[in-house]
Amino acid sequence: MSVRTPDPNPGWLSEEDLYEARRRLPIVYVEALPVRLDSLGYVTEVGLLYTADDDGQFYRSVVSGRVMYRETIRAALIRHIEKDLGSLALPQLPPSPAPFTVAEYFPYPSETGLVDDRQHAVSLAYIVPVTGECEPRQDALEVSWLSPEQALSPEVQAEFTGGREKLVQQALAHVGMAR
Amino acid sequence: MSVRTPDPNPGWLSEEDLYEARRRLPIVYVEALPVRLDSLGYVTEVGLLYTADDDGQFYRSVVSGRVMYRETIRAALIRHIEKDLGSLALPQLPPSPAPFTVAEYFPYPSETGLVDDRQHAVSLAYIVPVTGECEPRQDALEVSWLSPEQALSPEVQAEFTGGREKLVQQALAHVGMAR
Amino acid sequence: MSVRTPDPNPGWLSEEDLYEARRRLPIVYVEALPVRLDSLGYVTEVGLLYTADDDGQFYRSVVSGRVMYRETIRAALIRHIEKDLGSLALPQLPPSPAPFTVAEYFPYPSETGLVDDRQHAVSLAYIVPVTGECEPRQDALEVSWLSPEQALSPEVQAEFTGGREKLVQQALAHVGMAR
Amino acid sequence: MSVRTPDPNPGWLSEEDLYEARRRLPIVYVEALPVRLDSLGYVTEVGLLYTADDDGQFYRSVVSGRVMYRETIRAALIRHIEKDLGSLALPQLPPSPAPFTVAEYFPYPSETGLVDDRQHAVSLAYIVPVTGECEPRQDALEVSWLSPEQALSPEVQAEFTGGREKLVQQALAHVGMAR
Repeated sequence: MSVRTPDPNPGWLSEEDLYEARRRLPIVYVEALPVRLDSLGYVTEVGLLYTADDDGQFYRSVVSGRVMYRETIRAALIRHIEKDLGSLALPQLPPSPAPFTVAEYFPYPSETGLVDDRQHAVSLAYIVPVTGECEPRQDALEVSWLSPEQALSPEVQAEFTGGREKLVQQALAHVGMAR
Repeated sequence: MSVRTPDPNPGWLSEEDLYEARRRLPIVYVEALPVRLDSLGYVTEVGLLYTADDDGQFYRSVVSGRVMYRETIRAALIRHIEKDLGSLALPQLPPSPAPFTVAEYFPYPSETGLVDDRQHAVSLAYIVPVTGECEPRQDALEVSWLSPEQALSPEVQAEFTGGREKLVQQALAHVGMAR
Repeated sequence: MSVRTPDPNPGWLSEEDLYEARRRLPIVYVEALPVRLDSLGYVTEVGLLYTADDDGQFYRSVVSGRVMYRETIRAALIRHIEKDLGSLALPQLPPSPAPFTVAEYFPYPSETGLVDDRQHAVSLAYIVPVTGECEPRQDALEVSWLSPEQALSPEVQAEFTGGREKLVQQALAHVGMAR
Repeated sequence: MSVRTPDPNPGWLSEEDLYEARRRLPIVYVEALPVRLDSLGYVTEVGLLYTADDDGQFYRSVVSGRVMYRETIRAALIRHIEKDLGSLALPQLPPSPAPFTVAEYFPYPSETGLVDDRQHAVSLAYIVPVTGECEPRQDALEVSWLSPEQALSPEVQAEFTGGREKLVQQALAHVGMAR
């Protein structure tokens, strides 16, 4: 082991360092599609975030965010769901740690069809039933609950960026709902 | 189409007919392992049924039963969970229709290691979180809630019949818990 | 146990009996979507059957068939793949017994959107890579290999019956390919 | 966007930088359990690596390694399988991008039970059938093919480090094989 001054902020990255890391390493992300279930477990609604980017363009998104150093995937999921849906959403994380898909975002067009200008992100995607009240806290302007049919409509699908409309299609196919 | 007298009881099978069908066709079953989850989605407890067979022997089991004609898998799951855990169990069926495994029971020893004297059963197995009160109604003498470690202990594993201890192992492995 | 004359043909059902059983019990089916994979495991082609029904109408289908009494799911899959793709298809069944979805066909319109006039079928659906030569043997007039994009095109999707176009969508979403 | 000198080695990290990154960010890993399948898709053998650590201690392992910047998960899997099993292993990556589990290794004891002294690793775990000849190239001293029963025996399970025996249990449970 090398001799180093103890790091006063283990796990903390400055903005500068994070910028650099994002150009050198794949970054671990989690994404969650919030859903409402009926008593038989059928998905009745999906929760989509409606957000504006820096240029004032509106687009749809799902719950998404980075996994921190020393943070479990489950803790990261809860943290980002609370950030985007508020603390009263009452999410129920699935018992299995396996995501329904893994989305690979690259900082340039790739075979995955998913793009993230800032980084190479490896994103574990989950479907998360919520039973409480959702009130967006941070960046999201709105959480809108759509039927699966609405979420798969060409109009709504066209409002996603980075290829995330595919993620919604895959999630709904996973629960047995195709177009 | 042939001309036949309309069946007054579609979907209903006499005991005799069911006995015969069980010797001629694989029968569709559902099985459910009830679990309690913590706020992060980790399984904290699994619910096992403690039952006596016709000879007065006690054994452990999971929620299990036949899918009826014209019944959806989800409806069958809810019906059998209510039968075995009572109507206040508040089960939350998973959003995906895919079982975590398919258990094939044969009326004789087979490569699957799963046995059911009465029939060839193809059983779709699900992990079902429950949040309410469980009170066994029908045959089950008791619902006992065990930690995953207890459920995987050699003592408890030895109390299952037909190879269902494997099902419990597979379910817990599916949620990230191995011995 | 009741005293009965031994059945000379256990597991065998007359056409008459099968007709009756199909009106009384859900029937276990397997369905397989044959795929060609590249060296990285990406699906490059899906194999669709092109068949004529009794009225001479053409439609697309996937490999599909009943699980017999005492037959394992894997044996049924291989049998139906050989029947539809020939004995040189070299299918590689997936190591996990869990299907990517369960399709429930009812003899009338239902919440599943899947219809089979003859019966209530519970169908375990698998994606099966094949590496050999495919030559349809029985009913299928043709096996056509389409790119995922072609298989998801509105024209091809409209050529399925019973709702099986949804199964193809779900299968392709499962392998990471959405529209 | 900030103005920066173009990076001559995008995606390349010095040993020093990688050491630092491993103390600040979760690192994306892939792990693969190589298996041999019979014609019905049953797992007949699992391939385990037998390796010595820096202290000359022998232990069992699975194929494992980091995902590089701009590298797809599939490319990383193939690269590490070739590194550990040689270029003639003929691995067949599964068509679905979803891992059978996600293993979270922490640089200290945690709720996951998985430990990696060097880093916080988020590892996507896959079961990969191989049909060719395996010849370990790099660090591994040996690839041994064990039956599922042997791989699950207490003796073999005790030879893993970091908790990876759980990964093997989970993989075999996923393919329907419990103890």
